[in-house]
Order: sequence, then structure tokens, then C-alpha cells
Amino acid sequence: MASLRALVVERLMLYHRSLSDLDPEGLSQAVTSTQLGESTDIDPTQVRKDLASIGLRGKGRVGFDATEVFHRIRQVLGFDRTHPAITVGAGHLGGALAAYTGFAQYGLRVVAAFDIDPARIGKEIAGCPVKPIEAMPDYIVQHSIRLAIITTPAAVAQRVVDDAVEAGVAAVWNFAPVPIDVPPDVYLRNEHISLGFAQIAHHLVG
Amino acid sequence: MASLRALVVERLMLYHRSLSDLDPEGLSQAVTSTQLGESTDIDPTQVRKDLASIGLRGKGRVGFDATEVFHRIRQVLGFDRTHPAITVGAGHLGGALAAYTGFAQYGLRVVAAFDIDPARIGKEIAGCPVKPIEAMPDYIVQHSIRLAIITTPAAVAQRVVDDAVEAGVAAVWNFAPVPIDVPPDVYLRNEHISLGFAQIAHHLVG
Repeated sequence: MASLRALVVERLMLYHRSLSDLDPEGLSQAVTSTQLGESTDIDPTQVRKDLASIGLRGKGRVGFDATEVFHRIRQVLGFDRTHPAITVGAGHLGGALAAYTGFAQYGLRVVAAFDIDPARIGKEIAGCPVKPIEAMPDYIVQHSIRLAIITTPAAVAQRVVDDAVEAGVAAVWNFAPVPIDVPPDVYLRNEHISLGFAQIAHHLVG
Repeated sequence: MASLRALVVERLMLYHRSLSDLDPEGLSQAVTSTQLGESTDIDPTQVRKDLASIGLRGKGRVGFDATEVFHRIRQVLGFDRTHPAITVGAGHLGGALAAYTGFAQYGLRVVAAFDIDPARIGKEIAGCPVKPIEAMPDYIVQHSIRLAIITTPAAVAQRVVDDAVEAGVAAVWNFAPVPIDVPPDVYLRNEHISLGFAQIAHHLVG
């Protein structure tokens, strides 16, 4: 299906989280747009519109089949398949992302981490092997890796992104605190954690 | 000064980053709204409006005093003072945030981490001591901690937030993958990392 707008994806993710919280019995029942709206703080009209945009229509006052909504969202957002990914940089942040168990429910699996530090290379982070950065391009090709998660220092981020893109990744998730360029056919998401702190700091002095 | 809207703070943060990239010579010169707009991908009219909102006016074609803009933004965003903070949870993510050197330029300093795991307690992460969770409330009071960064598992996040708020923090930065409630006078920012992955996954299957 055609790409959904980022805000629609964000709301679908919230409905997904709300439905994830249900036990098997809850998931076997109907869920109304009012219920989904209440648990996500989104207007029920918006809920119905979002669900209609992925082909789901409720039945009058009965509402939606919760299991159907759950699985349709997982399908549209790509959570029903496995996305093997690598982290570049196996320091604190790279290690945190490689070890984060919460990603599994979305199909994201970090299968290897790459670093230049001999003290890290050869070790494992939560079962994820740390390999030398030189081995990254071949690894991307051989394992059909489509996502590279960048946690290197700012100074080398663009260089490793260029190498990962040339090796064939379709998406880059950038945690390095520096703007990155990618070709137009590669999806780039910048996760600028410090930006979040600016909002907090402004509040703390406000 | 009154609180700025989140989008204004975000753009000021981008100007700040752009000016941070200048060497001392560049910072000693004038900078135009066109230059700032180009380096941040923001319309020059918007740049002038944002800078006017924090009391800065350029001089015709000469532009703005780069140093003055830089320091005024740091002042408004609170980067010119130190914000001692704690992380609750000293696992991979808590450790990554405690060790992240990039926060220093914004005045954020993680001074202690708290955990329930005896294997972690008593150790240090990049110079930051790991203490037992029971010691958190007293530590917040004694060290006038105003920000708690939450990286615990979802199941205990609300409980530790309640304890931190009762001990007196003014802001909570939540990295736990669960919605959190705080009283209206406490600032809450949810950093929902998995939400970022939903955008990527949708693109990878799109």
C-alpha cells in the first residue's frame, strides 16, 4: 500500500500499543473507536478515519474486531516480519539499542554491531556479536541488511553512512548528533535525543 | 521569560547547533538570517521571527552578531547553567544516557544512577556512581535534583516516577516504553524510541 503520512503511522502505533496491553480475552472481543480514543487520547472520529485508511470499518455500535485491528496495524507497519538491522558503534548507546528487548515485538532484530575499538571487537552484547567496522559492507550484502543504526561519534557518522548505503541498506536510523545526507531513495530518520533535552531545560529555567 | 512553544524551542536548538559548528573566528562575525536559514533548512523570515521572539534584532543587511545570538539562545534554553540529573535504571540505556558526553554542552549532567540490581550497585558508569533505588528520594532532596531520567522496565516506571516526583523533581524524561502520569506542575517528556522505528518499518515494507 502507499506510504502513510508520519502522523498516521504515529497514531496507528499508539492504537497498536493500546491493543498490545489487552490480555487474550480482551483481544478476542470487539473494541470501539471510543475505547481506542480514550486509551490513546485521540478523538474517536480520528480513530475511525485512521482505521478506514488501512481498510478497516467498524460495525455500528459493536465496533471493531480487536484482533483484526491489531493484526492489520502490524501488517501495515511491517511488524509482522523480521527486520534484521546492524548498529554502527558498539559503545553505550549502540549497546543499549542492540540489547533493547522491546524492539522484538516490532520485528526489529539487531543482528550485529560494528566498531573500531579492539577492546569491543569479538565480544557480544546481549547475544549480538561486535565486529570490526571494515567487515560491515560485506556483512550488509551477505545478510541482506536493510537498516543501519548509527551511534558513532559525529565526526565519522557520514562516512559510515556512505559505506552502509553503498553496500545496500534501504534505511538509516541516525542517533549521532550531526546531520546526515543520504540519497533520495534511502529513508533517513534522525533521532536527536539532545533536542528533547532542550525542551526540558527551557522548562526548568522558565 | 514566558515559555516558548515547542516548535520555537526546536528551531532555536537547530540555530544553536549551526552556530556551535562555527570556529571562534566565524562566531566573532555577523551572521545573516539567510545563512542561518540555509544551514538549518528554515525560511529566513522564520529565522528573523524566532530571533525577534527572544529579543534579537538584526541590523539590515549586516545581520546578527553571531556570538550574541549564540549566547542568547543558550540563556533562553537554559544551557548556560548546570542541570544535575539522575537516571533511574542503570542498564544499557540508563548507562548510555549517563555516559553520553554530548549532553555537557547543554548543561545536562547525570550525577548518579539508581538501580535494583546488586551486580550494578556500587559500580560507576563513566564516573557516575550507581546507587540502590531505595536511596533515590533522599539523594534527590539532598542534591536538589530537578530532573529524573527514567529507563526502568515498563512495569515499575510509574512507581519510580511517583517516588521521584514526591521527592521534588520538576521534570521527568521518560524512556520507558509506557505512558506515565505526573502532576500538572511537573514537566513530562516521553521519548518513545520505538515510535521512530514504526516510521522506518512502514517505509521498509512500503
